[in-house]
Amino acid sequence: MKEVTSVQVAIVMGSKSDWPTMKVAAKQLEELAIPYVKRVISAHRMPDALAAFAKNAATEGIAVIIAGAGGAAHLPGMLAANTLVPVIGVPVKTRTLNGVDSLLSIVQMPAGVPVATMAIGEAGAANAALFAAAMLAGNDPALLARLTVFREAQTKAAEESEAALDD
Amino acid sequence: MKEVTSVQVAIVMGSKSDWPTMKVAAKQLEELAIPYVKRVISAHRMPDALAAFAKNAATEGIAVIIAGAGGAAHLPGMLAANTLVPVIGVPVKTRTLNGVDSLLSIVQMPAGVPVATMAIGEAGAANAALFAAAMLAGNDPALLARLTVFREAQTKAAEESEAALDD
Amino acid sequence: MKEVTSVQVAIVMGSKSDWPTMKVAAKQLEELAIPYVKRVISAHRMPDALAAFAKNAATEGIAVIIAGAGGAAHLPGMLAANTLVPVIGVPVKTRTLNGVDSLLSIVQMPAGVPVATMAIGEAGAANAALFAAAMLAGNDPALLARLTVFREAQTKAAEESEAALDD
Amino acid sequence: MKEVTSVQVAIVMGSKSDWPTMKVAAKQLEELAIPYVKRVISAHRMPDALAAFAKNAATEGIAVIIAGAGGAAHLPGMLAANTLVPVIGVPVKTRTLNGVDSLLSIVQMPAGVPVATMAIGEAGAANAALFAAAMLAGNDPALLARLTVFREAQTKAAEESEAALDD
Amino acid sequence: MKEVTSVQVAIVMGSKSDWPTMKVAAKQLEELAIPYVKRVISAHRMPDALAAFAKNAATEGIAVIIAGAGGAAHLPGMLAANTLVPVIGVPVKTRTLNGVDSLLSIVQMPAGVPVATMAIGEAGAANAALFAAAMLAGNDPALLARLTVFREAQTKAAEESEAALDD
Amino acid sequence: MKEVTSVQVAIVMGSKSDWPTMKVAAKQLEELAIPYVKRVISAHRMPDALAAFAKNAATEGIAVIIAGAGGAAHLPGMLAANTLVPVIGVPVKTRTLNGVDSLLSIVQMPAGVPVATMAIGEAGAANAALFAAAMLAGNDPALLARLTVFREAQTKAAEESEAALDD
Amino acid sequence: MKEVTSVQVAIVMGSKSDWPTMKVAAKQLEELAIPYVKRVISAHRMPDALAAFAKNAATEGIAVIIAGAGGAAHLPGMLAANTLVPVIGVPVKTRTLNGVDSLLSIVQMPAGVPVATMAIGEAGAANAALFAAAMLAGNDPALLARLTVFREAQTKAAEESEAALDD
Amino acid sequence: MKEVTSVQVAIVMGSKSDWPTMKVAAKQLEELAIPYVKRVISAHRMPDALAAFAKNAATEGIAVIIAGAGGAAHLPGMLAANTLVPVIGVPVKTRTLNGVDSLLSIVQMPAGVPVATMAIGEAGAANAALFAAAMLAGNDPALLARLTVFREAQTKAAEESEAALDD
Repeated sequence: MKEVTSVQVAIVMGSKSDWPTMKVAAKQLEELAIPYVKRVISAHRMPDALAAFAKNAATEGIAVIIAGAGGAAHLPGMLAANTLVPVIGVPVKTRTLNGVDSLLSIVQMPAGVPVATMAIGEAGAANAALFAAAMLAGNDPALLARLTVFREAQTKAAEESEAALDD
Repeated sequence: MKEVTSVQVAIVMGSKSDWPTMKVAAKQLEELAIPYVKRVISAHRMPDALAAFAKNAATEGIAVIIAGAGGAAHLPGMLAANTLVPVIGVPVKTRTLNGVDSLLSIVQMPAGVPVATMAIGEAGAANAALFAAAMLAGNDPALLARLTVFREAQTKAAEESEAALDD
Repeated sequence: MKEVTSVQVAIVMGSKSDWPTMKVAAKQLEELAIPYVKRVISAHRMPDALAAFAKNAATEGIAVIIAGAGGAAHLPGMLAANTLVPVIGVPVKTRTLNGVDSLLSIVQMPAGVPVATMAIGEAGAANAALFAAAMLAGNDPALLARLTVFREAQTKAAEESEAALDD
Repeated sequence: MKEVTSVQVAIVMGSKSDWPTMKVAAKQLEELAIPYVKRVISAHRMPDALAAFAKNAATEGIAVIIAGAGGAAHLPGMLAANTLVPVIGVPVKTRTLNGVDSLLSIVQMPAGVPVATMAIGEAGAANAALFAAAMLAGNDPALLARLTVFREAQTKAAEESEAALDD
Repeated sequence: MKEVTSVQVAIVMGSKSDWPTMKVAAKQLEELAIPYVKRVISAHRMPDALAAFAKNAATEGIAVIIAGAGGAAHLPGMLAANTLVPVIGVPVKTRTLNGVDSLLSIVQMPAGVPVATMAIGEAGAANAALFAAAMLAGNDPALLARLTVFREAQTKAAEESEAALDD
Repeated sequence: MKEVTSVQVAIVMGSKSDWPTMKVAAKQLEELAIPYVKRVISAHRMPDALAAFAKNAATEGIAVIIAGAGGAAHLPGMLAANTLVPVIGVPVKTRTLNGVDSLLSIVQMPAGVPVATMAIGEAGAANAALFAAAMLAGNDPALLARLTVFREAQTKAAEESEAALDD
Repeated sequence: MKEVTSVQVAIVMGSKSDWPTMKVAAKQLEELAIPYVKRVISAHRMPDALAAFAKNAATEGIAVIIAGAGGAAHLPGMLAANTLVPVIGVPVKTRTLNGVDSLLSIVQMPAGVPVATMAIGEAGAANAALFAAAMLAGNDPALLARLTVFREAQTKAAEESEAALDD
Repeated sequence: MKEVTSVQVAIVMGSKSDWPTMKVAAKQLEELAIPYVKRVISAHRMPDALAAFAKNAATEGIAVIIAGAGGAAHLPGMLAANTLVPVIGVPVKTRTLNGVDSLLSIVQMPAGVPVATMAIGEAGAANAALFAAAMLAGNDPALLARLTVFREAQTKAAEESEAALDD
């Protein structure tokens, strides 16, 4: 088990093949100076590790779990089944169904155990990090300030992008 | 504007026709003793009210917004565009497309402005309240205790439901 | 834990609301004189019970698990993750998405942990029982004989149904 | 704010990444000698600019707005919510869902605030320009004449394309 | 052929079974005091009538055509193929596919011949009328005034609907 | 108008861009020595030519029409609306929706005017030719013999293809 | 085996539960005075009967087979695999997937063995009969005359249906 | 007919073009030292061979059939219709519909004749082999041991893959 003392967010993925998607979340957290740990925990190949990780998450100081998986994506829901730490789900794009399977497997949770689902793919991974940041910012004025700056910069970049249209 | 001093959660819906779905969220919040306010704010008929509500939400002490809408469901995303308060989206079931339109309109947000999307319909509304509770519980040990009791009772009820199968 | 000594098949469902579908499997097993046990084990509300059930299934003599679930249907896949006993999945029809969510959540398992998926709803439940019977019949000539009689009767009934069209 | 005195059509897009699609509309307008302005206004990153643009559109002489966006495409609907100037929506193709998300987010508007939706992608962008032209032509006989010529040429080109099939 | 001298809008439907949907458009036009004619013209059963109607529409003073159809809904597109008068398409909900077939048959027009597509079903019919009104209002200040009043009343009704949630 | 005296089949497509798909039908007809004519007739750009072609088809000796189109594919249905000559529809694959739009636009014809729909893309084009051949073979023993030989050769090729699997 | 000497069309269905759909085809054939036989042949429960029926169809004078089935609808395709008599497929509406499964199982035939697919449900059944009639009419002037009368009456009924809209 | 005396599993595919998918099943069986035979049997081009193969399978000692097919994938269901040997279906990915057609054609079997369906594509092929192995392992302790080792190694590989994430 990794040392996760000051970590606030855990990025968990079902396979290392999800990393190209989930590293977008990691970079976004880094940009906002939010410490995180990244883990590969396959729901289907490592079910015991999944349960152990989730049951210990709160004790280890993890305040938010970001979980990405594809296909019959059981990782986010099963993490949520084993902890009260909020779980944000990222549906990873799949080769056959483009992530529709991932999306429905994550978002259609039954009443009682929520998973906060983001968009399919990299946009969803980025937004998982931003949503985690917004959650943490509720009790972290410095982070709120950084997030505010990020949003303002993002707006400014969008405004300025218009110039790029000109021939 | 309503007096919302001690309120922590706002339940916002695009139309009063969304209330049968969204009242499931309201009841779940009540069960967990979380104060909330409920609002009808149509993204398309009341865009100014939408922007004003979202811009003022943080100042008024709202820590989480739960937004339900159906069809071309722009309410959750536009609230999120106007505030850093976390927005949880509930896709309301529609008559023609069963809420697939609502789901995609809410969950497929572009990178930069997240909406935490729940399942279509009443299950999603219940889980929106539970996710809001889990977020708030991070800094409210009494709520965390209530949420823990809720989850344990939920597990016990599931275990005992097996008896109902006999005969 | 129930006494399951001579049981060969376990019918597991995620909620008692799945029973109207899964009892079709039960009746089919009874018709073929295959002993079974029925269980309600919610993947999301009872994850520890799920893991314990699956890990003990082989020891308790269960040769086939039939698992029915709806929505983000994680039960069949998580059972399969915890045992080598073959798991047959039945996607239960859902109110919003008619079971498309259940189907994709069950069938799109990643390489390494299979779930044998049947049709959505009651037809799938009946076929889960018949597939379990065919598996068991490989080493049970008496069951193979019963199954052969069942199939012949089914063919005869189909042939004779033509008379019902007249008029 | 750009000088838009004699402009009749505004092409608005949610991101500069929509430009390869939306420039097809621009070229079609140019071919018909219809003056236009092009703008990048992100619904989610620039909600204030969106509202301001839409509220001022009529005053600035804009008779038709063509709005292209992808994913949870809120731009066309939110523009329409803020103005009575007719809004034509173009669903931009997306990497994960091929624009089905964009289409449903734009076309499934609730009663009360219409958006005239075109096909996904470049064909839709071309047709947005042509539909705008047809609207404007109702009071512009010269434009109607140009549009008539365009359609006749289009028919002629289709007729002559048959020759290209021969070996 | 009916006398349509002062009519501005034609509501055309592929079958009288579309009338329950399309009368929503008719009522909306009446509310805005816009004269219209309603016609049943089946694209597949009355192709000659379709072509004749469309070719004569402009001469008869029709400024906007609202066309509703279901299934393989060819009516809006074939009307548009035969006239430069703007055509607004309304996908009528179908029994088997809920109007997804109607929607795709109407909206996915190839470049060159646009149809302005509205939402599936009654919401789409209402919005077809409102879009037609917005188009006509560009040159009819009195209509623009009526449309403005309608939109303000609509906003007020939405604002006041919140009271209906209490209790 | 082309000279089509001895032609039995017409291959019609909505655009020359459909030719790569439809030439598969042409080659299949050639292989079976069935004379055909190929035409580009856009439903939306050449509606008069479409009606004229269909109305004259029977007189010109055309016994079967094969019509391929993509997107809002109105060509097969509108041909069928204008003639009693049987029309076989081929949904051409599209860039955004892979031909699902083409398929639904062609197959979901209302009662009264049938179109015999084939699979999306090249397989559908080949089968359109084979279905036309089977229709014509009903009164052409020599063609029936050629078709029988074709099917036998096809079966033999499938049987022999197994050898290609080794190593 | 039934006496089918003068029969031209066989209506085959996979289950008697398909009869409410397929009897629409039967009634349409009767209206056109086309003799037919109706059969229940389940592809999965009566595969030998299926093959025997198809192999004998031509010899017994059957010129067209209309086959209706639902779900994993293998009947039309397997009939076509066993005969050169043209097979028209009717996708029967299903409870879970509304016939989308039936449609794809029937229409997506591989190159080499065509099935002429009609719309899902009763409209498709009616059109299967009409398409069979059009095929037979190629060599039956009296039938062609009856079909012509049918189409003209159909057009007249559509034209007159407009009166039903008033009030 | 091939000599298949000691073979336990038959891998059947509808076309040699399915081999790139199905060889994943073959390799997985080899890794577990399970003897198999591979066959190309097209349901539509070789229906007699299909029936003969299935009817003889049990006699020839085949305990499990793995059947892969694409599009209107009738092979698995028709094999199951002709034998009581359990059939595992693998939906092969298709160019137009990505295997959704294959999946629905295989999984939506009517009550009475089951097919155990796996995921679309290579993951499904691998899992078909693993499910066959689990079935056979019920009476083959040595195979059960090999399967147990495989699963443990798979878990270990997943655990160790985390290291690959580090920069």
